[in-house]
Amino acid sequence: MLDRLEMLRSLSVEKNTRMVLLVMDGLGGLPSADGITELEAAATPNLDLLASRGETGLLEMVDVGITPGSGPGHLALFGYDPRKHFIGRGILETLGVGAEVLPGEMCARGNFCTWGEGDIILDRRAGRIDTDSSASLIARLGKSIREIEGVAVRFYPGIEHRFAVVLSGEGLNDSVTDADPQNDGSPMVWSRPLEPLGTRTANVINSLIRRLRETLAGEEKASGCLLRGVSGTPEIPLFPDLYKMRSAAVATYPMYRGLARIVGMEVVDAGKTIESLFQAVKRDWNSFDFFFVHVKYTDSRGEDGDFEAKRDVIEKVDRLLPEILSLKPDVMVVTGDHSTPSVMGGHSWHPSPFLLSSRFVRTDGSESFGERACARGSLGVMPAHKMMGLMLAHAGRLAKYGA
Amino acid sequence: MLDRLEMLRSLSVEKNTRMVLLVMDGLGGLPSADGITELEAAATPNLDLLASRGETGLLEMVDVGITPGSGPGHLALFGYDPRKHFIGRGILETLGVGAEVLPGEMCARGNFCTWGEGDIILDRRAGRIDTDSSASLIARLGKSIREIEGVAVRFYPGIEHRFAVVLSGEGLNDSVTDADPQNDGSPMVWSRPLEPLGTRTANVINSLIRRLRETLAGEEKASGCLLRGVSGTPEIPLFPDLYKMRSAAVATYPMYRGLARIVGMEVVDAGKTIESLFQAVKRDWNSFDFFFVHVKYTDSRGEDGDFEAKRDVIEKVDRLLPEILSLKPDVMVVTGDHSTPSVMGGHSWHPSPFLLSSRFVRTDGSESFGERACARGSLGVMPAHKMMGLMLAHAGRLAKYGA
Repeated sequence: MLDRLEMLRSLSVEKNTRMVLLVMDGLGGLPSADGITELEAAATPNLDLLASRGETGLLEMVDVGITPGSGPGHLALFGYDPRKHFIGRGILETLGVGAEVLPGEMCARGNFCTWGEGDIILDRRAGRIDTDSSASLIARLGKSIREIEGVAVRFYPGIEHRFAVVLSGEGLNDSVTDADPQNDGSPMVWSRPLEPLGTRTANVINSLIRRLRETLAGEEKASGCLLRGVSGTPEIPLFPDLYKMRSAAVATYPMYRGLARIVGMEVVDAGKTIESLFQAVKRDWNSFDFFFVHVKYTDSRGEDGDFEAKRDVIEKVDRLLPEILSLKPDVMVVTGDHSTPSVMGGHSWHPSPFLLSSRFVRTDGSESFGERACARGSLGVMPAHKMMGLMLAHAGRLAKYGA
Repeated sequence: MLDRLEMLRSLSVEKNTRMVLLVMDGLGGLPSADGITELEAAATPNLDLLASRGETGLLEMVDVGITPGSGPGHLALFGYDPRKHFIGRGILETLGVGAEVLPGEMCARGNFCTWGEGDIILDRRAGRIDTDSSASLIARLGKSIREIEGVAVRFYPGIEHRFAVVLSGEGLNDSVTDADPQNDGSPMVWSRPLEPLGTRTANVINSLIRRLRETLAGEEKASGCLLRGVSGTPEIPLFPDLYKMRSAAVATYPMYRGLARIVGMEVVDAGKTIESLFQAVKRDWNSFDFFFVHVKYTDSRGEDGDFEAKRDVIEKVDRLLPEILSLKPDVMVVTGDHSTPSVMGGHSWHPSPFLLSSRFVRTDGSESFGERACARGSLGVMPAHKMMGLMLAHAGRLAKYGA
């Protein structure tokens, strides 16, 4: 069976066409008491017009009934089947705190913890130590621990007890278990190799934890750490090779910028607001063929369980949309990386509403952009990882398959 | 995972039922300025009635966004997943000029070319030599070159500088590169084996080119040739074995007759017109269980970019359709092998509209046969290679899977 990415790689050609993939994080929702969703409740004249001139459908991000994390959701939008291409928690957390990670480096999520007698972990979160204290501990560790067993170590502060570690050296891999007892009051459980290849990495992880304990000796707020989710950049073919286009990531949050970087996009300065995102697209319009534009706040307000606030973010995006539409992209897609219904206050498995606009569509009679309208759209329920190839086709960037 | 073809092979049974697969080549289109497609614009009372009594959907020929060539499109309609079963350019071109090709034989596309000093290829198309001159050169070559290194050689004339070659002998395969410099004014690039198994074939290809140069010595219009796309019949399970039915190919164009022959259909005399196609079905109604009926002209007019002419072909097919309907087939499917929107003037990736009529349908409220109507049909967007199994099911020709 010819793999889809192999097929796209072999058929993709360069062309002078511009594409925009606008991702409203967690866009999809569920009806609230009055029977309509956040997206359906929002006044979105520009998105509705785009839907009426395009085709609509639903994107199945991973598989039926599967709730995607942000990593798998975005990998799917970028064309990678998230059932085949996995992205680890350590690397995601590390990208999320703004670190750059190179191929071959290993990342881990760190927790400051409280260590008792006889290697008992009293509190896995060190009393949810405050973010400032945590950051000053990380600064201290960064100065005193630069290397373990010949492996360079970099520390990055996170929120409260959380931090990230990047290990850089020869012979590291992710075939190791977490160094974490899982429960407060349990004896420390050290990292173990899952196969012989992981022995060195497990040793480095455990040595780093011991060294960190020594360094923190006498420290009140935290007396040790746990390290989890050891993982590196995924082994995947990269955008320039796959799709033969110049790709820009326009995103305000570090994790999405990091995700885009590890698939080979160029990350551009995007400021901190939806306005600045859209201005960045305008500024760089002539320098790239493909723009991944990421709006975080739909997901944030959905996670807050705030129906009206999520609706308002969608309306704001809609009001600003003409900034991008005025550039006349050849292909424009608007969707989410997963659903975040505010009635659930978290990610969900419901497929993402999806519109595609180009000169070459069979308009499907859509009059608005919403979950139920998209469920009746002509693109049907489509695996999300196939969407990127559809954008390339509409941009005239895929040659014919076979004679 | 049980392969679909294996499943069909193990479940298929003989039965006294008749099926018609009517393929209008390149049927699917796109809206023109007035917002409707060729198929939607056509007056098709018979197809509309068939749709209203059947179920409709869209066929995804290869995969989302992938524009199929005629080979992959037809393989899919015949039940073969075109991502698994590939058909080479050489064999397709050779079938297209009307040659019969047996399993194990290798085909190549030939170009007459102009050969300069020091093996420089001056013009890869020999000034687009006229078809008559080309045919007389082929006749000459056919008499003087019958064998190369123990391999029998057959030549077939094509259009302008094009011709086809079939090599017949032991130990040939398709693991070789093209003998083609790709650009005018470049030194000849000879065929090379891609693996040791291809050594003999590459040698035969290169020797044939040298012998052809000697034979053409002193010839004004062409002084050599290039050979490309070496390929044989695909290794696939054949119709009689898979589906246990007597299958007739009713097609006017050589390539489609050839495609049908290599999957194991019997190719019947079909004349040159749509009328003669349909008369051939009537004539042979009692001799076969399955009729593949191929109308070429929808694609031809789409390729011409002639919206009205493509619409007119569809209307003509519709007017003649009662000839087939009067035979009362148990199952009738009407679709295309890919889309050829006249606004694009070429093949496209858009899925093919598709109707299936039988006694055992859940009619879906379709009132007409068109791209947008089919997008709302109950069969949804279906991988095209699954359609053949659906026809067999409706014809009562598939046993139950499991107890």
